[in-house]
Amino acid sequence: MNTVATFDQVRELVGASVGLVPTMGFFHEGHLSLIEAARRSTETVVVSIFVNPLQFGDSADLAAYPRDVGRDAVLAGSSGADVLFIPDVDTMYPKGSRTIVTVEGASASMEGAYRPGHFAGVATVVAKLFAGIQPDVAYFGRKDAQQLAVVRTMAADLSFPVEIDGLPIVREPDGLALSSRNVHLAREDRASALNLHNALFAAGDAFEAGERSVNALLEIARATIDVGAGIDINYIEAADASDASTVDRIDGPVFVAIAARIGNVRLIDSILLDPATERADRGTYIDNPSILYGGA
Amino acid sequence: MNTVATFDQVRELVGASVGLVPTMGFFHEGHLSLIEAARRSTETVVVSIFVNPLQFGDSADLAAYPRDVGRDAVLAGSSGADVLFIPDVDTMYPKGSRTIVTVEGASASMEGAYRPGHFAGVATVVAKLFAGIQPDVAYFGRKDAQQLAVVRTMAADLSFPVEIDGLPIVREPDGLALSSRNVHLAREDRASALNLHNALFAAGDAFEAGERSVNALLEIARATIDVGAGIDINYIEAADASDASTVDRIDGPVFVAIAARIGNVRLIDSILLDPATERADRGTYIDNPSILYGGA
Repeated sequence: MNTVATFDQVRELVGASVGLVPTMGFFHEGHLSLIEAARRSTETVVVSIFVNPLQFGDSADLAAYPRDVGRDAVLAGSSGADVLFIPDVDTMYPKGSRTIVTVEGASASMEGAYRPGHFAGVATVVAKLFAGIQPDVAYFGRKDAQQLAVVRTMAADLSFPVEIDGLPIVREPDGLALSSRNVHLAREDRASALNLHNALFAAGDAFEAGERSVNALLEIARATIDVGAGIDINYIEAADASDASTVDRIDGPVFVAIAARIGNVRLIDSILLDPATERADRGTYIDNPSILYGGA
Repeated sequence: MNTVATFDQVRELVGASVGLVPTMGFFHEGHLSLIEAARRSTETVVVSIFVNPLQFGDSADLAAYPRDVGRDAVLAGSSGADVLFIPDVDTMYPKGSRTIVTVEGASASMEGAYRPGHFAGVATVVAKLFAGIQPDVAYFGRKDAQQLAVVRTMAADLSFPVEIDGLPIVREPDGLALSSRNVHLAREDRASALNLHNALFAAGDAFEAGERSVNALLEIARATIDVGAGIDINYIEAADASDASTVDRIDGPVFVAIAARIGNVRLIDSILLDPATERADRGTYIDNPSILYGGA
């Protein structure tokens, strides 16, 4: 595996078919599942690590974002990456960089409402990775369901010839969605955090039992939350999976997303409801506690 | 030459080195000089024709923009184009298209001040052409000097691996810069239109005589305007040629740009001042009236 820091170096190393896994590093099994999927389908697997300041409104959140590039390099290599791209901030945003990519509509609600400017930061950095690396397939996790919709919309609107592949959420044995931020979760808050996926799974159960009204599903999800558990719910909402637009009934793929603050940590989770299969995609589980906690 | 309407078709037809000439059609000798330059330097020459509604604030201006695709196809082919890309509006902006590329700073003054949203439209459509066609070199005329700076900034900021080549303005025998809009210029307004390049050339003369103060050069340009000639000057301004930022002295390449309304037609022109060569680039001249007026 080669580790490089400029777009020119990446393009020199890639072959006929390029899979890109854009990340902010501090890998867990969710990231590794994306790298492994790229390894199975594309000739050259490029993994980027860049904690993108443009998508953090809160500088304390940016500073606290966990980082360990040495550990990430080992994990990326063993999962099948060919090129590890770790640009510095000056490569990504050269002095005077002033171009912003915005995706109107898809960026407005949910995370966009709670993190102003967040999705402009995401769309800009992903557009730059697509422009500079020219991947054939790019891999994203479904946990950030609205981000996936923003990226799909941006790539289609700008005609990037890239396939966007959204892969299932990977969960701890107790159901908590893997997130690099989980390392900041206090032991006493862990039980509270399980409210997130439990709420989504309740909606998923009702969907599989035939419920198609978004309002009814959201009510079911909200009713499961243990309001005494020290969990501050930002939102529980549903949206069209392709473009994050509002939906009243589930006539096509829809995600239900939840965001909550638990202690000092803000977590998100989601579930994908597909009326074609009549299934709720809850993701996959790992058998043991995540490598985030010191395993490898 | 192949004429196609989708990005997939373009990419199927291009070779190892791609030159792109993005246009709005209704070709004059300025466009043809870009196509010929692409022919000399790249293996596959792609010429796009798209009258981009996103860059027109004024729907009457959009409706009046001259069009003649049949004539353009003949001229593009004889100038060396391999692929003529004529997408329809639905290809460029599919239903629900919501992604906008903005270049802050470079878009604010001059044309940006007189045409709100214009450069977001330009940056978005050019980013889409770069993303979808992946050219190695893209060719633009220097008349639209601020547009050239916006495109250069966008391409660098988003890391598109494309060289931006700005080529000299082509002028009528009497000095008027070629523009597709010139066909709308009334016969009695033609003399007034010559004020534009005369003002810029006066600044160019002073620059070549050693003047480096932007204010002094702009004063000289303004003093040449015949205020009784029925010409409504929007602005005469100078800016850094690379990013359209404000400059007080000419320490690097700077353009002086002018915009004016003459009758029902709004025209722009520019001159490039380069302290490295101590030369003002006034462009090139054709020997006979432009093909715009019926010649071929």
